[in-house]
Amino acid sequence: MDEASEFQRARSPEAKRRREASILEAARSLGGERGIRDITLTDIATAVGMHKSALLRYFETREEIFLRLTAEGWQEWSDALSARLRENAEPGPASVARAFAATLAARGLFCDLLAHAPLNLERNVSLTAVRDFKLATLAARGPITAAVREQLPALDDQDVTDLVATAVSLAGALWQIANPGTEVAALYRSDPRLAHAVIEVEPRLARVLTATITGLAAAPPA
Amino acid sequence: MDEASEFQRARSPEAKRRREASILEAARSLGGERGIRDITLTDIATAVGMHKSALLRYFETREEIFLRLTAEGWQEWSDALSARLRENAEPGPASVARAFAATLAARGLFCDLLAHAPLNLERNVSLTAVRDFKLATLAARGPITAAVREQLPALDDQDVTDLVATAVSLAGALWQIANPGTEVAALYRSDPRLAHAVIEVEPRLARVLTATITGLAAAPPA
Repeated sequence: MDEASEFQRARSPEAKRRREASILEAARSLGGERGIRDITLTDIATAVGMHKSALLRYFETREEIFLRLTAEGWQEWSDALSARLRENAEPGPASVARAFAATLAARGLFCDLLAHAPLNLERNVSLTAVRDFKLATLAARGPITAAVREQLPALDDQDVTDLVATAVSLAGALWQIANPGTEVAALYRSDPRLAHAVIEVEPRLARVLTATITGLAAAPPA
Repeated sequence: MDEASEFQRARSPEAKRRREASILEAARSLGGERGIRDITLTDIATAVGMHKSALLRYFETREEIFLRLTAEGWQEWSDALSARLRENAEPGPASVARAFAATLAARGLFCDLLAHAPLNLERNVSLTAVRDFKLATLAARGPITAAVREQLPALDDQDVTDLVATAVSLAGALWQIANPGTEVAALYRSDPRLAHAVIEVEPRLARVLTATITGLAAAPPA
């Protein structure tokens, strides 16, 4: 096989893995720049220097690519949040809430993906891709649950499951509201009656999660 | 003007209003049956018995139609929740949370719309449509805030704003997770490792919001 045809089609597992990584990296870069909403398979193929038909040998749909990025995002966020919680010298609802809020707000692409995953991404992929994604998020929850319960022994596993679901749902929704596109953002700022539409993700998230954790810790065990 | 041409194009304000109402009703009915995700302008035009080009005289995009339904949904939910709260004889975090959870879970189409609004619906409509939508949701929040504060005087306006944002974000996300399409739902039930993906909207929402309200009520005023 000469170099040109190797570039056309990656035949070894290692070459295939590298090609997949390039595709994911291109999608990550495009998504981080302008949000994933309008990014097409053709955009990704162009960014990685492949024809769309070649890209389809690696991923069936744009949703499959973004669902893989969402799974990677869960793992990376889990590592970051768990590490931050383990270093937290003042355990309590407010500091744990701030750790969730800060690590989520710092990950705009992940927040964008979190909002799109249940609506748009899980609905145009194979069942195998959905299963792999669900198992990846399950694995990513483990270290978070352990780290939160270490800090807040009053919470049980169900409490932390509820807390994580609330945090990611809210982070996804708030990020979308906080990043509405240039024209709509200008509209919100121009009309005082729309002040409620201008939000900051991190303080809002920290405030709500502080309340949620306080309430979870105060409740009698189920 | 004979009857046929009146049917072709509604010229009076009243005829225009009736035509718009028929279009919204058709979209509501289709959305309630199968979720709004894949419903196109052509589907709606077919259901209402119009050509797509005629429908475009009333609404510019499918997103504009669904954003109008979302605004109507806010108003209708606000009425229902406020009425239920006014009749609540045992004010407290758990009963207020149950009122939010029950009224949201009973409105599947509204939950679906809530999830799609910031991601997909506000992004393909005119600025006027976005402004009208934001003002409609603002108006719908008023009665909810009054009714919640009547029940729970420890909460201030900001607390109720946070509570409503949490409730609608979570209801939208949980509804999507709970309604993943037939094939994916079967997958979740078939694999015990995916048990965490099978959720019930109402009890989950009631549990989280009870905790959030408890924490908001316990916090010192900001």
